[in-house]
Amino acid sequence: MNYAIIGTGAIGGYYGAKLAQAGKEVHFLLRSDYEHVAANGLKIQSCDGSFVLPKVNAYRQAADMPPCDVVIVALKTTNNPQLASLLPPLLKPDTLVLLIQNGIGVEEDVARMFPDVALAGGLAFICAAKHTPGVIEHQALGNLAVAPYRGDLTGKAARLVEEWVEAGIRTRLAPYDDARWQKALWNIPFNGLCVAMNATTDQLVNDPDACKVVSTLMDEVIATANALGVNCLSRVDADKMIEMTRGMLPYKPSMMLDFHYRRPMEIEYIYTHPIAKALEAGVSVPAMQMLESQLRFFDKRQLE
Amino acid sequence: MNYAIIGTGAIGGYYGAKLAQAGKEVHFLLRSDYEHVAANGLKIQSCDGSFVLPKVNAYRQAADMPPCDVVIVALKTTNNPQLASLLPPLLKPDTLVLLIQNGIGVEEDVARMFPDVALAGGLAFICAAKHTPGVIEHQALGNLAVAPYRGDLTGKAARLVEEWVEAGIRTRLAPYDDARWQKALWNIPFNGLCVAMNATTDQLVNDPDACKVVSTLMDEVIATANALGVNCLSRVDADKMIEMTRGMLPYKPSMMLDFHYRRPMEIEYIYTHPIAKALEAGVSVPAMQMLESQLRFFDKRQLE
Repeated sequence: MNYAIIGTGAIGGYYGAKLAQAGKEVHFLLRSDYEHVAANGLKIQSCDGSFVLPKVNAYRQAADMPPCDVVIVALKTTNNPQLASLLPPLLKPDTLVLLIQNGIGVEEDVARMFPDVALAGGLAFICAAKHTPGVIEHQALGNLAVAPYRGDLTGKAARLVEEWVEAGIRTRLAPYDDARWQKALWNIPFNGLCVAMNATTDQLVNDPDACKVVSTLMDEVIATANALGVNCLSRVDADKMIEMTRGMLPYKPSMMLDFHYRRPMEIEYIYTHPIAKALEAGVSVPAMQMLESQLRFFDKRQLE
Repeated sequence: MNYAIIGTGAIGGYYGAKLAQAGKEVHFLLRSDYEHVAANGLKIQSCDGSFVLPKVNAYRQAADMPPCDVVIVALKTTNNPQLASLLPPLLKPDTLVLLIQNGIGVEEDVARMFPDVALAGGLAFICAAKHTPGVIEHQALGNLAVAPYRGDLTGKAARLVEEWVEAGIRTRLAPYDDARWQKALWNIPFNGLCVAMNATTDQLVNDPDACKVVSTLMDEVIATANALGVNCLSRVDADKMIEMTRGMLPYKPSMMLDFHYRRPMEIEYIYTHPIAKALEAGVSVPAMQMLESQLRFFDKRQLE
């Protein structure tokens, strides 16, 4: 299969480069990094082995790219309205669009924009960041859950998992809701609190007071998921995730980087949508609501 | 009556100076500002008319001060353990100790330290700060509620109100619990949120997201007060306080100044005690708990 990457940031850049390194045909859409990557390629500084791709298929516009079997959307969700123009040139009749993005409700909204397109969620458990053009720093983890959402009649998700595993990426199929909420269990406490408390993940989990807030938020996520019929999550998973985060190096989640670089934060899909789903299901989520309000305040203030 | 002021900061300095200006006998206990105030007196820069007291009765130690009819404690509550040694030299058999301090449960703890002393709470509704030695900036308001707590057999609280009104201070007697919780209705949202959100009061009340958090915290204070039998507070008071705060100039509450000057914050009496009382009464206060945890985290980090 050939692949298009929409959004060559840390996530799109890392997975796309791994595929290209394994000999797959990969087409990268870039914006601010285009000149640099077209001239110099991509550099992956990885805990699993660094490598350079001196030449990649780099594009400035989606219209110049070929239609692909799989389109990977690795934009910030704050840019998803742009999919209306970015996606159509890349679609074949049976293209699978894989949304490797944060939050709850992403596929729902993209499905509404493209009623006939096959969709899957991609849940990346990876510590990675891009601080300079064309250079991806991969700090830890890297596994991906592929969660079919709708209309994958040609079984591309399963083929994708096979190809990615061959390419050395720990990839697995996962039930859609389970996978999204499992990722939310980490995202909802850590993305927002790292901004609101100006702290890296290790500072949060190693301080009893901060960790209490992490834990409260996780309890709210679990209660919401359970009320929505997602029963794979329990307090045991929360404790495991806290332990896993204790084992990680100091990490700045993507929302914290967005805040530092004065980019809009992904509040809508990481907080607003899950909160709405919780309230609809009759679950009270006061900590999530308070954190959302704090983040909205910070978001506006930094953009002033 | 003669007066001793323990803690000549913004509050102790302002009220003490107003009394001294009106001709009352006032004795000021100072620590870091002693040299400066002993040499230069106190300067009050006030929205109600500035004045200077070139010579005040300044002391470095409580042991050098005369016993007084009224002792005003205007320390940060974080210093209250020092009252064990500071108070005894100032006490006559019928001395009234007026605690002009923030929080819930202050009198309870001081009453335990001094089982035979007459106590009253003092609730100052005032915007004032001391940024340099001996200079008090009084920005707005200034009224004081005197709330008898225990053992004022000689009616000193009522006499105090008379004398202070004569001295030009808007002072009134108020029922103890009503007064403490009314002040908490302002302190609990604004003191902590100004630190947690790095914003002055006007920024909080003029932003809909931040104001939502203010409002949630006020609802929790009201629910707690009501559960404890304090029925003077309702949502109407919350809205009035928000409106009043909108009418104020940009203000940094005392906790925000403590944070900026790297002094310990008054988390214990402003948050921990009211939260404990809420939970005892079966009231859920998730926003107060989350804010408390955030503040404890910031408090430790700034003192590192």
